[in-house]
Amino acid sequence: MIGTPDDAVVQRLAALGLILPRPSKPIGLYRPFRLDRGTGYLSGHWPLRDGMPVHLGRVGAELTLEEGRAAARLTALGVLSSIREALSDFGPLRGLLRVDGYVASAADFQRQPEVLDAASELFIQALGERGQHARTSFAPARLPTNHSIKLVVTFSYDE
Amino acid sequence: MIGTPDDAVVQRLAALGLILPRPSKPIGLYRPFRLDRGTGYLSGHWPLRDGMPVHLGRVGAELTLEEGRAAARLTALGVLSSIREALSDFGPLRGLLRVDGYVASAADFQRQPEVLDAASELFIQALGERGQHARTSFAPARLPTNHSIKLVVTFSYDE
Amino acid sequence: MIGTPDDAVVQRLAALGLILPRPSKPIGLYRPFRLDRGTGYLSGHWPLRDGMPVHLGRVGAELTLEEGRAAARLTALGVLSSIREALSDFGPLRGLLRVDGYVASAADFQRQPEVLDAASELFIQALGERGQHARTSFAPARLPTNHSIKLVVTFSYDE
Repeated sequence: MIGTPDDAVVQRLAALGLILPRPSKPIGLYRPFRLDRGTGYLSGHWPLRDGMPVHLGRVGAELTLEEGRAAARLTALGVLSSIREALSDFGPLRGLLRVDGYVASAADFQRQPEVLDAASELFIQALGERGQHARTSFAPARLPTNHSIKLVVTFSYDE
Repeated sequence: MIGTPDDAVVQRLAALGLILPRPSKPIGLYRPFRLDRGTGYLSGHWPLRDGMPVHLGRVGAELTLEEGRAAARLTALGVLSSIREALSDFGPLRGLLRVDGYVASAADFQRQPEVLDAASELFIQALGERGQHARTSFAPARLPTNHSIKLVVTFSYDE
Repeated sequence: MIGTPDDAVVQRLAALGLILPRPSKPIGLYRPFRLDRGTGYLSGHWPLRDGMPVHLGRVGAELTLEEGRAAARLTALGVLSSIREALSDFGPLRGLLRVDGYVASAADFQRQPEVLDAASELFIQALGERGQHARTSFAPARLPTNHSIKLVVTFSYDE
């Protein structure tokens, strides 16, 4: 089967049992993304299922490591959906650039990189080499609205 | 009255009863902004009045929601001043790109998006479509020097 | 002695008694940097000596101001090493753009800008005008793996 780069990404996700959700909507007076001469800036993403926030709380307290990883993966899936929305399809995507990963954490929880690896892994599974990215992990005591994960992603695209 | 894009922004602010303050000065060994081939990077901004920090403390504790919104709006006004300083006037500004908004927050305060909307609204009131931006909100327990708000803004301009 | 821009940076560091360390390796499924059409994005850096994390803890609690400054300077040295690794040498570097500086801080510690100035100063000592940057300082209660400092750096280069 021959497909476009867009088909390939959707097929890879399907092979993982995943379907792209509807792109999330801003909670406030901002836009979900801005595109500027080849660089795309996404607003912060958090875990949503059927448009509703899930996996609320802190990893290491209300959430286990595995729940944190599920939350990170779900957030990454939403990021992919927003990139597709921004570019119409995955064809023009050159690649991810910068991922800032925030894990709401109990005071003694230190395994943020393992949590965020669940997001990074999905990016690479879905996008291949285009999913590679620079990353920074953070361990805030809380995030707005009690979200467990926040991802802020910058990407590159062909105009 | 016919004016330049710069005039238009200043006039819109005047209609809101606002005057651009002097651009703020760095507190340390850094520059207020960097311009690089069409993309501008501003250093972090916080609420200043006549060059002095105001609205210190956490929203939901020392500050009310409305005081937090006033702090966010004042910070956004400083951002506009710094963009104008960076570009000499608003004419070359293509638009805002990414706004990272930090609201120093009491542990149980969760209305950060409402606080930051006061900044986003001013950007749009002053700049119109050019004021639209991607945004991420954060809820740190504290910011340096006990500031209540910090905005980190990236923008696009014509060279 | 006439040298390339690369030599000059290495010589300036040597005059300060500093040698570039080996570039740090990612702790997770990400890349140390991404280069995209003239803009470079580094993953977060923290203080390493001989590849091992040092200066763990919070400034104002487990660490003094001077220890925090030593940690910031050491982190900046690692940033320089990663930029060199990304570009092969310092020749193509146009300059630093944005530095996000995180200082893990005791609740009552407010001198984050002084801590981060130790990093900014090293950038300028090593790179001259190319080391100038926009900067934002943050005061999280903790960082992943109990690091005291995290620097997230974006830079500009000639392709």
